[in-house]
Amino acid sequence: MPKTLTAAMADTVEQVEAAIDVLLPRVDLPEARLFEAMRYGCLGGGKRLRPFLVMESARLFGVNPACALRAAAAVEFIHCYSLVHDDLPAMDDSDLRRGRPTLHLEYDEATAILAGDALLTVAFEILADPETHEDAQVRCRLVSALAKAAGPRGMVGGQMLDLMAEDRTFDIGAITRLQRLKTGELIAFSATAGAILGRASPPQHHALQAYAHDLGLAFQIADDLLDVEGTEAETGKSVGRDEGANKATFVSILGVERAREQAGRLADQAMAHLDIFEDRADMLKQVARYVVDRRS
Amino acid sequence: MPKTLTAAMADTVEQVEAAIDVLLPRVDLPEARLFEAMRYGCLGGGKRLRPFLVMESARLFGVNPACALRAAAAVEFIHCYSLVHDDLPAMDDSDLRRGRPTLHLEYDEATAILAGDALLTVAFEILADPETHEDAQVRCRLVSALAKAAGPRGMVGGQMLDLMAEDRTFDIGAITRLQRLKTGELIAFSATAGAILGRASPPQHHALQAYAHDLGLAFQIADDLLDVEGTEAETGKSVGRDEGANKATFVSILGVERAREQAGRLADQAMAHLDIFEDRADMLKQVARYVVDRRS
Repeated sequence: MPKTLTAAMADTVEQVEAAIDVLLPRVDLPEARLFEAMRYGCLGGGKRLRPFLVMESARLFGVNPACALRAAAAVEFIHCYSLVHDDLPAMDDSDLRRGRPTLHLEYDEATAILAGDALLTVAFEILADPETHEDAQVRCRLVSALAKAAGPRGMVGGQMLDLMAEDRTFDIGAITRLQRLKTGELIAFSATAGAILGRASPPQHHALQAYAHDLGLAFQIADDLLDVEGTEAETGKSVGRDEGANKATFVSILGVERAREQAGRLADQAMAHLDIFEDRADMLKQVARYVVDRRS
Repeated sequence: MPKTLTAAMADTVEQVEAAIDVLLPRVDLPEARLFEAMRYGCLGGGKRLRPFLVMESARLFGVNPACALRAAAAVEFIHCYSLVHDDLPAMDDSDLRRGRPTLHLEYDEATAILAGDALLTVAFEILADPETHEDAQVRCRLVSALAKAAGPRGMVGGQMLDLMAEDRTFDIGAITRLQRLKTGELIAFSATAGAILGRASPPQHHALQAYAHDLGLAFQIADDLLDVEGTEAETGKSVGRDEGANKATFVSILGVERAREQAGRLADQAMAHLDIFEDRADMLKQVARYVVDRRS
């Protein structure tokens, strides 16, 4: 009896919330405020797309779900830290995130900087812990792959480009590279984490990598479309920001129609990469379709 | 022919600069600014005390210096990222660091946030790389120990307490705990990294841990004394900031005389912990004395 995508994603949301609650417990210490802020930054909301990719890719290789869940939480910590820092006044200066005040408004800027730093650091602590995998080689490979995906040649490099995009004209190639770095690399890590945990064969690993590549771009184009067409009530975050900042995006370059077509094509392509897994990759295929059709 | 401490520390400074130059090369990419900022944040200055502790503790166990140097650079990246974020307007709002404008003044705030994030991330990438140690267990232990030392139950927790110290009265116990977290844990990691790399026995590991504990406190008391008695020309950073911020420090609580005595006692105690290594720990002993006598 195959679960629907919606039910499977809801399951992951629940599992991830519970895992984060355990991994980041409330503490009775003078610096409790830091731990509260970390929890605020990553509990209560979010589609948990990256954790879902970790869990589903791990399931392809029969990985122990408790281990996969730790890797899923680690990726989510990285994702959430990047949102917390991205929202800061010196960066995107956002007020709203997941329908709530951003962390620096709910707490203060200094706490937001530190909570982000702490989430980033804890992500690596979790991956290096023997509870994540019995084999230290696998754990090291996870740490290494996550650090590459999140570092200056991955996500942070993409954030830097994104800042620079406000002052200059980026063509479609430059925007594609920016988005591959800014969101694509972490999505690619998520979709291949299961392959690392499950010691997949190189062709299996590559299939997931190719899937994630197309998925990441499709996701970003859909995000740009939502920034133009979505409402704050739907997305839970500030919209219309790209145009306000005069930022080049897929939509500003391709136009709404062609951007939507391109996203659809990328989703089809992403799914095709998973054919080697036959129907075991059904959820991952469905998520590619969901990513381009979502309204939030 | 035993090298003097000054010569040994100068050697480490040179080696660490060279290692950082290789680990963080200039890049010919649109986001080159990020890499330049990372280099600005950790090249050109600094006593490299933490790398020195890594190198010297590694030497006790005959660790390959090239491996130790990678761990030393990783610790320094963490230290430098913490300075970059600490100097931000929302945190300490410092203008001067190592005799130069702080990173957010030389570049801008957003770049300083991202460069700090990138340095933190790269530190873990370096440790997890097989070049740091052939044994993945050792690498995982390094990642784990560094993440603990730098995270919310270590350095970042201490930074949070430090922010809170401006509004409330901390007694000597609270200040000691604050400083153990803020600077002590990373110093302890540095002094035990060699033991991890060299698979030291538990008593050896504990001796280095105890040494680092006392050294860390002595270092911090000396730092507080410099903030009161040093000049910007000597220290290369803004001084008199603690008093300006009405911050409780060892010196504000103990007074200059007793603080100086306490630092000396801690240095003696630190050295005593190293007796099990006989004269092989000579440099580590000398560094404890240096830490309390330094003028910058």
